[in-house]
Amino acid sequence: MTLSDNTPAGPQVLISEVGPRDGLQSVGATMPTVDKCRWIAALAAAGLREIEVGSFVPAKLLPQMADVAEVVRYALTLTDPYPGLTVMALVPNRRGAEAALAAGVHKLTLPVSASEAHSLANVRKTREQMLGELREVLALRRERAPGVAVEVGLSTAFGCTLQGAVDEDEVIRLAVACAQAGVDEVGLSDTTGMAHPAQVRRLFTRLRAELGGGAGSAHMHNTRGLGLANCLAAFDVGVRTFDASLGGLGGCPYAPGASGNVVTEDLVFMFEAMGVRTGVDVEQLIAARAPLQAGLPGEPVYGMIPEAGLPKGWLARQSR
Amino acid sequence: MTLSDNTPAGPQVLISEVGPRDGLQSVGATMPTVDKCRWIAALAAAGLREIEVGSFVPAKLLPQMADVAEVVRYALTLTDPYPGLTVMALVPNRRGAEAALAAGVHKLTLPVSASEAHSLANVRKTREQMLGELREVLALRRERAPGVAVEVGLSTAFGCTLQGAVDEDEVIRLAVACAQAGVDEVGLSDTTGMAHPAQVRRLFTRLRAELGGGAGSAHMHNTRGLGLANCLAAFDVGVRTFDASLGGLGGCPYAPGASGNVVTEDLVFMFEAMGVRTGVDVEQLIAARAPLQAGLPGEPVYGMIPEAGLPKGWLARQSR
Repeated sequence: MTLSDNTPAGPQVLISEVGPRDGLQSVGATMPTVDKCRWIAALAAAGLREIEVGSFVPAKLLPQMADVAEVVRYALTLTDPYPGLTVMALVPNRRGAEAALAAGVHKLTLPVSASEAHSLANVRKTREQMLGELREVLALRRERAPGVAVEVGLSTAFGCTLQGAVDEDEVIRLAVACAQAGVDEVGLSDTTGMAHPAQVRRLFTRLRAELGGGAGSAHMHNTRGLGLANCLAAFDVGVRTFDASLGGLGGCPYAPGASGNVVTEDLVFMFEAMGVRTGVDVEQLIAARAPLQAGLPGEPVYGMIPEAGLPKGWLARQSR
Repeated sequence: MTLSDNTPAGPQVLISEVGPRDGLQSVGATMPTVDKCRWIAALAAAGLREIEVGSFVPAKLLPQMADVAEVVRYALTLTDPYPGLTVMALVPNRRGAEAALAAGVHKLTLPVSASEAHSLANVRKTREQMLGELREVLALRRERAPGVAVEVGLSTAFGCTLQGAVDEDEVIRLAVACAQAGVDEVGLSDTTGMAHPAQVRRLFTRLRAELGGGAGSAHMHNTRGLGLANCLAAFDVGVRTFDASLGGLGGCPYAPGASGNVVTEDLVFMFEAMGVRTGVDVEQLIAARAPLQAGLPGEPVYGMIPEAGLPKGWLARQSR
């Protein structure tokens, strides 16, 4: 999606919804396909214009994602009512990318761990091996679908529960290696909820200095309550794409103790309250929890805004 | 408390704990005096050096505060082990200030509402009448205890659930009026959880431009999840004193829908993680929840850090 900063009515930040992938892959239950589709439709209706709808991984590893091709095909039909919609999927390797491209996704995202220990636990590959996978995916993209964007999310970029601190120079070196391989955007993920605002500003400032427009999204977790403060910190240093998950669904099952994506409802509320246009309607976003909860009965959802409600006079204030 | 910015070992921000006043006055149950004392001792032991220990209001209005003079006398004994400790109390008027000064407090805080509607609901006085009370308290201070500090917290400074938006010029005018009357510090309170980071930066920047060193604390609520982001925003524009409440206890009972002080544990964690010294030990702070919960059985407490735990390697990182 192109952000039209110049036109007063256009969004100024892009909220990239990761719930249907990151959220669903972290919970034990499998959401029925029809509920996934209803949920994704509600997300798009609320104004979200980038949705990570699933991951192309072997169904025996993640049965929650067995229907991902079908879900992608459904999501693509939503570009009719919502022409700016980007349908995105996670792929861990060339094989996943082949399936995702065959299904017609607009954008691929690959997880590359900044921590070697996390890389081995999450994808059973070293970081170097993952860079190799990435190069294969990029070669495939050149051959088959040059119009498809490829993003890397550098997980555990702010620390790792398995190995502890992650060297910031290594994070930046890895990001540069991804960009040199031909990736369009490299984002930084606080997979384990260890990031703090000073670190977020430091790392994204360095990332933007090295990669310019190739610096991608801030993927923050709310594990220790700093999710929104970290997003604010990233915004302050120029980040304009933010991953979030409706109801805070998700986290990383391979990083012990980690949980809690930033809640989309709260993140959109923060930006809109600040007068930063997201293009997303908070009330419709809250309404999009219904299909999520229908498809995952009993699964806890989080978020302050859905509980506290919008402040008095919100509609008059919201700058859309 | 004087913040010694120049000495590497000294705190760089002052966390002002308001739980024993703001928290206890918002809950239905009355904490036994002995538990209040144990709790305050634990807060001081954790490193907190400004504690609002109660309010001097008629016991028939707030029975939770009937023992406030006794609690103040106990808290003053803590200056023996903790010499830098400031014992603070809220007073709504001259009569309360007389009792507080007689008890020996180091610092008085008066609530002045930025919203006329909230002023009438909270203290049954107009804002002008509250400025009159304030002048009487300041006259009393000059006569009887010139060494005692007087602070005003401007409540509903960021919006009011009763009247909606609060004019920012009026907030600043009221702050200047308080300073001209002779108040030492004027802080801004997000009583109703309506503040957002852009507004926090704007208002505190103006406050500091007008009042200089007389600009006081940021008292933020977490009603809509923005508590820490708002504290970060205030820090960014130079604020160095932050109100918080252990376990997030409290809020304002006269502002419908408002709840949730910023959680001291989470706020201290954020600053310490950033390398901003608070002088407070997060683990001892978490331990200070025990006497709070013993004295208020069944009362919910909040906070992400107590649930998620400190990140791996925290002790090595904490810059104290």
